[in-house]
Amino acid sequence: MAVKRISNENDMKLCVVMVGLPARGKSYISQKIVRYLSWLSIGCKCFNVGNYRRVLGVDKPKYGFFDFDNMASYHVREAALEMAFKDITEWFDGNSDSDNIDNTGHSNGSLTHSVAILDATNSTRERRDWILQRCHEHGIQPMFLESWCDDPETIAANIKDIATTSPDYEGQDECSASQDFKKRIENYKSVYSSLNTADDKSLTFVKLINISHEIVINRIETYLQSRIVFYVMNIRIRPKCIWLSRHGESIYNVEQKIGGDSSLSERGLKYAAKLRELINENVENNERLSVWTSTLCRTQQTAQYLPYEKLEWKALDELDAGVCDGMTYEEIEDVYPEDFKARDDDKYEYRYRGGESYRDVVIRLEPVIMELERQENVLIITHQAVLRCIYAYFMNVPKEESPWVSIPLHTLIKLEPRAYGTKVTLIKANIPAVSTYKEKGTSHVGESTDAEGAHNMLVNAPEMTQ
Amino acid sequence: MAVKRISNENDMKLCVVMVGLPARGKSYISQKIVRYLSWLSIGCKCFNVGNYRRVLGVDKPKYGFFDFDNMASYHVREAALEMAFKDITEWFDGNSDSDNIDNTGHSNGSLTHSVAILDATNSTRERRDWILQRCHEHGIQPMFLESWCDDPETIAANIKDIATTSPDYEGQDECSASQDFKKRIENYKSVYSSLNTADDKSLTFVKLINISHEIVINRIETYLQSRIVFYVMNIRIRPKCIWLSRHGESIYNVEQKIGGDSSLSERGLKYAAKLRELINENVENNERLSVWTSTLCRTQQTAQYLPYEKLEWKALDELDAGVCDGMTYEEIEDVYPEDFKARDDDKYEYRYRGGESYRDVVIRLEPVIMELERQENVLIITHQAVLRCIYAYFMNVPKEESPWVSIPLHTLIKLEPRAYGTKVTLIKANIPAVSTYKEKGTSHVGESTDAEGAHNMLVNAPEMTQ
Repeated sequence: MAVKRISNENDMKLCVVMVGLPARGKSYISQKIVRYLSWLSIGCKCFNVGNYRRVLGVDKPKYGFFDFDNMASYHVREAALEMAFKDITEWFDGNSDSDNIDNTGHSNGSLTHSVAILDATNSTRERRDWILQRCHEHGIQPMFLESWCDDPETIAANIKDIATTSPDYEGQDECSASQDFKKRIENYKSVYSSLNTADDKSLTFVKLINISHEIVINRIETYLQSRIVFYVMNIRIRPKCIWLSRHGESIYNVEQKIGGDSSLSERGLKYAAKLRELINENVENNERLSVWTSTLCRTQQTAQYLPYEKLEWKALDELDAGVCDGMTYEEIEDVYPEDFKARDDDKYEYRYRGGESYRDVVIRLEPVIMELERQENVLIITHQAVLRCIYAYFMNVPKEESPWVSIPLHTLIKLEPRAYGTKVTLIKANIPAVSTYKEKGTSHVGESTDAEGAHNMLVNAPEMTQ
Repeated sequence: MAVKRISNENDMKLCVVMVGLPARGKSYISQKIVRYLSWLSIGCKCFNVGNYRRVLGVDKPKYGFFDFDNMASYHVREAALEMAFKDITEWFDGNSDSDNIDNTGHSNGSLTHSVAILDATNSTRERRDWILQRCHEHGIQPMFLESWCDDPETIAANIKDIATTSPDYEGQDECSASQDFKKRIENYKSVYSSLNTADDKSLTFVKLINISHEIVINRIETYLQSRIVFYVMNIRIRPKCIWLSRHGESIYNVEQKIGGDSSLSERGLKYAAKLRELINENVENNERLSVWTSTLCRTQQTAQYLPYEKLEWKALDELDAGVCDGMTYEEIEDVYPEDFKARDDDKYEYRYRGGESYRDVVIRLEPVIMELERQENVLIITHQAVLRCIYAYFMNVPKEESPWVSIPLHTLIKLEPRAYGTKVTLIKANIPAVSTYKEKGTSHVGESTDAEGAHNMLVNAPEMTQ
C-alpha cells in the first residue's frame, strides 16, 4: 500500500523512549525498529545516551559511576541525556520543511523523519517526567517501550555480549568486564521503577515482559504506534537461518526477457536438483525448514526436489513490469526511452506503466518480513527484485542502493540474523547461468558467466550489518 | 499474500474463549472477528451459549436465573455450555478432512474451519478450567479474550442495546428489561474473576480494558493469534461513516474495455463535480473527512473538486487483469475462451494470467480495512472490483457472491457500521453512465442506462447485515 499524501498536515514526531535495566535488549530492539521502519521508508534514527556520555569524556566508566548517590556522575549522565534530546529535536526540526510526500504505506503522519528512539535505561519516574516535559514542549509524541526481563539465560547472554563488545569495556577481559557490568546493573536496580498501568495510566506505553511472552499495551492510539507495537510483538530471539535463492535460470532469462511465467532452462533444472544437495549439506539434520515460493512456475520448479513443507506466496511474485512484461531491456529502451531513463534515474521509485516500483514491492513484502521474524528456518525461492528487497531488510541496505544489489542466479544465500547484525554466507552451485544484472545507464545485461561470475555479488552491502 | 499450502500439516483448531461481564461488548467483538476472518477466507464461527440456553427452553429468564447459588439454573447453564462445546468439536471435526489448501494469506495453519468463538461470560476460573480441559482433550488451542470495561457510557449503551434487542427481553418494555438486566450483571459480578498475569500466566490470553485503551497480551504465539490480537487492537467504537464511490465514467468504460488508466468521459467529469455537491449535502459541516483514491487517474479526477485531505493508495488500484488489460469482455471470450469460462465458473478464485484474482485483491486490501477500522469518516473513490471487496467486508457478503455484486457508476454509497450490522444508503447522482455489469455466462455488459438503471444495485446483499 504505497500511499501518497496530497494535503498538508502537521508533521508527526514520535519519540520511542526505551525503558529498562541494562542487559534487557533495549539496544537490540531499538536497532531492529530502526531497520524495519527505514526499510518501509519511515525516517527513523536511534539516539543512544551512552554514546553521548562517551562524547562527554566518560568513555570507560566503572560501576561506581552509575551509583545514583554520586552527584558528579549524575550531572554527566543528565548532560548526556540533554545532548541526546537536543539532537532529537534538531533532527525533527531540520526535516520539518521537507517535502510532504508520504509513500510509507500508511495514512497517518510519518513524513520523512518521524521516529526518534531514545535508547537509555530511563529507569526512574523523575527521568521519564523530564522527558515527557521536553516532548510536550517540542510537540513530540512520547511512546515508552519497556523491556522487562527476568529470564536468567537471556540476561546472561546479553551481559556476555555487552562485556565483549561495548566500547565501555574495550580492552578489558570478559570476566572482569562482566563483574563490573553486573554491579552497574545492581546500581540501576536500586532506583528502577517499572511502568505499570496504575502509576502510568496516562502514558502511551508498551511493556514487553520476557520479550514477547507477555505484553502490556496502554493508550496506543496512532497507526504508527500500533505498527511498532505489532512489529515488536513479533520479535523472537531464537537463533535461526534464512536461506534465499533466485529460481534457476529460466527460458526468459536466456532470452534476456523480463517478467513472464516461463519454465526453467536445462541449466535451471540442473540447479533445482543441485539445490536439494546444497540444502542437505548445509541444513542440520534435525532442523525444520519451510520452503516459500512465489506463484510463478520457475520458482516452483526450482523447489520441486526439496522434501520440505512448501508455501506459495503471491507476495513473492516478481516486480510487475506492467506494459514492459516480456520485453528485453533493449526493447524497453527502444519503445519507452523516457521511462527507461526515468527508471535508471530513480529505480526505487520508478513504477512501470501498469506495474510496480521497488517501493510497491517492499510494501507488499511487509507481511512476509513480519512472518519471517516469527518463523524459525525458512528457504525463500523467489525473483531478483523481490530478493533485493528482502536482502535489503536483513542487511540494512539503503533504499536507493537496494535495486542495484547484484544477486546472481544459481547461488544460495544463507542469512543468520544475530543480535548486532546479520551474517551472510554465499554458496555457489557451480552451474553456469546467464547474468541478468543490468548496469545503470545501459540496456545490456552482463555477459554469460560461469559460476565465477558471482564474484561481484552483493557488492553494495557489507558482510555484517548493524 | 495469497498463500497456498502444499504439504500436509495438522489442522490448527483455535477456540477464542470470550470472558467478561454482560454488556461488555463480547458479542460485538465476536461478530467482528467472524466477519473479518471470514472475509479473509479463514473459517470462523461464533457459538453463543445464550442461544443454546434458549434452545434448552429457558428463553426469557429473569435475573434470578443467573444467581450462582441457584443450582437448578446452574445445571441448565452448564448443559448449554456443553452443547455449545460439543457443536464446536463437531464443527472442527466435520471439516478436518477438508482440502488442505490455504489461501488465507498466512502460512500458519488456518485450514477451512479454524477458529471457533465461544461467546459467553465464562466469568469464573472453574468454568474456564472446564473449557481448558475440554480443549486439551480435543486438540483445540484455547485463546481467552476478555473484554473488561468500567466506562459507564459504554456499559449504559450496551445495556440499552441488549434490553431493546435481545430475545431474552422480547416483548418487554425497555425500562423493566434494563432493570432486570442490571440485576443479572450484579449476579455475575459476585463471582467474576478477571484474567490476570499472576493467576493466568500459563494461558494464552488478551485482555481489552475499555476496548483498546489498555491491552494485556499473554503468551500469544501463533500467527493466527497475533492476527486476531492486532485486529481487536484496532477496533474503535466511535460512530462513523464510510462513503464509497466508483470513479466517474471513464473513456474505457464507454469503450467497454477493462483495466487501463484512461481519463474520465464528459459524463464522468460531470459526476466529479456533482460528487462535491453530494458530499456537501450529506456530510455534517464540522465532520472531518479523508478522501482515499487509487493511483489511477480516473479516481483522482473524480476526487479533484473535493476540499478534503486526500490519500493515494496503490492497494486501491483496480484488480489487475494481466494479459486481458485493455480488452473488452467480447475480445477476452474470443482470445481466451477457456479463461473466460473459468472466470465465470469461479470468479472469486480465478486469477487473470499475469494478473490477480478477487482473493488477491482482498489480501492486498487487508491493511486498508485495518485502517478503516481505526479511522473516523472516510470517502473511498476506487474501482468496481475493489469496491465489491470492501463492500463485502462491511456487509458480510459471502465470498462466492462478492464478485457479482452490482455497483453502478455515478452512485455514492454511505455505510454506517453499527453494533449489530451496517446500514447502507444509496445516493444517486442522476447522471447517466454506461453499465459495466457483466452477467455470468455472457460477454455482454448491461445496456447504457440512465440513473434509473441503478435499481438492480446491491441485489445480492441485504440492507442491514449482522
